Amino acid sequence: MSIITIVGAGMMGSAMNAPALTNGHEVRLVGTPLDREIIDSVKKNHYHPTLVHTLDEKVIPYQIEDLDKALEGCDLVLSGVSSFGVEWFAQTVLPKLKSGARVLAITKGLHAGTDGALIPYPTYLNSLRPDIDFMAVGGPCICFELQEHRHTLIYFCGKDLDKVKETRALFATDYYHIIPTDDVIGVETGVAMKNAYAMGVSLAVGLSDRDIGITDARGIAGQHGTNSLDYNPRYNPQAALFGQSCIEMSRLTRILGGNPRLISGLPGAGDLYVTVFGGRTRRLGTLLGRGMTYAQAREVLKGVTLESVAIITKVAESLRIRAKRGEIDPAKSFPLLMHMDAIINRGAAVEIPWENFGSCESDF
Amino acid sequence: MSIITIVGAGMMGSAMNAPALTNGHEVRLVGTPLDREIIDSVKKNHYHPTLVHTLDEKVIPYQIEDLDKALEGCDLVLSGVSSFGVEWFAQTVLPKLKSGARVLAITKGLHAGTDGALIPYPTYLNSLRPDIDFMAVGGPCICFELQEHRHTLIYFCGKDLDKVKETRALFATDYYHIIPTDDVIGVETGVAMKNAYAMGVSLAVGLSDRDIGITDARGIAGQHGTNSLDYNPRYNPQAALFGQSCIEMSRLTRILGGNPRLISGLPGAGDLYVTVFGGRTRRLGTLLGRGMTYAQAREVLKGVTLESVAIITKVAESLRIRAKRGEIDPAKSFPLLMHMDAIINRGAAVEIPWENFGSCESDF
Repeated sequence: MSIITIVGAGMMGSAMNAPALTNGHEVRLVGTPLDREIIDSVKKNHYHPTLVHTLDEKVIPYQIEDLDKALEGCDLVLSGVSSFGVEWFAQTVLPKLKSGARVLAITKGLHAGTDGALIPYPTYLNSLRPDIDFMAVGGPCICFELQEHRHTLIYFCGKDLDKVKETRALFATDYYHIIPTDDVIGVETGVAMKNAYAMGVSLAVGLSDRDIGITDARGIAGQHGTNSLDYNPRYNPQAALFGQSCIEMSRLTRILGGNPRLISGLPGAGDLYVTVFGGRTRRLGTLLGRGMTYAQAREVLKGVTLESVAIITKVAESLRIRAKRGEIDPAKSFPLLMHMDAIINRGAAVEIPWENFGSCESDF
Repeated sequence: MSIITIVGAGMMGSAMNAPALTNGHEVRLVGTPLDREIIDSVKKNHYHPTLVHTLDEKVIPYQIEDLDKALEGCDLVLSGVSSFGVEWFAQTVLPKLKSGARVLAITKGLHAGTDGALIPYPTYLNSLRPDIDFMAVGGPCICFELQEHRHTLIYFCGKDLDKVKETRALFATDYYHIIPTDDVIGVETGVAMKNAYAMGVSLAVGLSDRDIGITDARGIAGQHGTNSLDYNPRYNPQAALFGQSCIEMSRLTRILGGNPRLISGLPGAGDLYVTVFGGRTRRLGTLLGRGMTYAQAREVLKGVTLESVAIITKVAESLRIRAKRGEIDPAKSFPLLMHMDAIINRGAAVEIPWENFGSCESDF
């Protein structure tokens, strides 16, 4: 039995209670300042309002004021913050951790360094605290399904493979299948980019809707919308964008120094598959495909955290810097990503750049 | 204007009339002996009964007796036969073609050579007629959507890239986007294997149904069943199998000498994405996942052509031969494929070999 302290009581972080409890660990769930109501609810009757699930009563809830108590004697800290919470985590939690502590993160994203560098969060956090082992989870996982013990296959990555394997032993169950790897860049690039490209694939869903005259937000609720609405299902364009997305994810992984072939696996293709079905990013892409501007779509989805938008913007900016250095031609190598950036950040209308799609053998 | 003769009036071959007509070519559609009723119907009122579409009256239908006439003066033969029709095509059509003729095939599959060799059909046919240019189409394309001019992104492959580019010029339109490549093995391995692995991913659909007590064939019509029925949608297991499928497709492509990275693109991931949504292979996988034996599932789907079963059997056999030579360990490198083979050919129950999934770094 180990003590696992989850910091960040969002849906995905919280759902990690499931494999931890299955393995008999003590699970402490600490809310960030944004999670106050969630923790209040769990304290009251174990109900997690965004995970829409009554947690096992063994999960011990803590408000942020009790962070010290929650960290006392813990064997592993699970960072459940989103990419918008990484700096908060670095400033608030890291200083409290002992040398040699282990941190496993479910955060999706890349840290923008100087000169266009894109750095996986474990590597970034490690630069702040070289005495701590930072690891991360990557691969297709819908939190609700993990909570209900559905078979899930993901990677744990970290620079020290032995530590990753030890951490795997804490969480591996007969439904939570973990592949250990030390390819942090490969896993984390896939993890981050699948959010971006899920928006890309969803553009095709919206474009098909537009073909039959649907240009408004019907069927797209704000925060808790259903995702399976598909008024005019057409799969060739979706599959084209899916394939192109995988090509661009592979290419970015190679540029950043990871194994691009990892993308034709769980953190890339598999993760994109599940993300296209689920959630906010699909709703955003669908609205844009129907013809809304980003500002209009944002209004429909107000209050929704859109990590996809942040990562698209960040990576496009990095690619422009690399282009200025003459390293790549973003319009040729990342036509879909650059188009998404133009839609979001420059008010461009959706106009899929088909002619630039493909394998672009020279840098593939 | 060129003359394009489509031999094989199945759905996919026939749908290729669309880009050909858009480009102003003369289109001749020749039925195989199995397509007699289709051609009768097209002759009568232009209606294609399996494509469920009234063809443009410019499409000229021919019964097989009139093959010679249909081939007369044609600039390109489009082979629309399934893998089960390749030998028929080789024996019936090839002898009638002139030296220097061009053949573009939509056939999905691999030819089983001696000693475990798996040979793309263009390469196989080229060995029979070295004086003909054989090319093939690969990538995600649902025939109905091509017929209605939906955006579609696919590869044309052939050993002579210039010829491939010439052929591309015949078919490229503003909705049919063609990437030319000379990586015949890469494209054709993806094309063939996505059918096999669509069954693998669909096992998860059936397993989820079984979780809520559905073990019969409800919702699964025979030949013309709808595909979107999903009684208990759960995506983590599907995504896990999707990712593992891409891993195994990459691996096989590498073993056969193609560029494995092509799989994280259109012929692999993109094509699998579209195939999982559409058609008979999903129905088969779902039934097996629900707990039916292969014999029982086959009975539900009687009369349905199952290329997936043929390719699984053929590739598993090849892998066993390679294993005997000590080249690979199929249980480790192709656990999903070998399990599908056991289900189909040895009556095994569905029991996903999770523990063998993953990147298997040694040969990835």
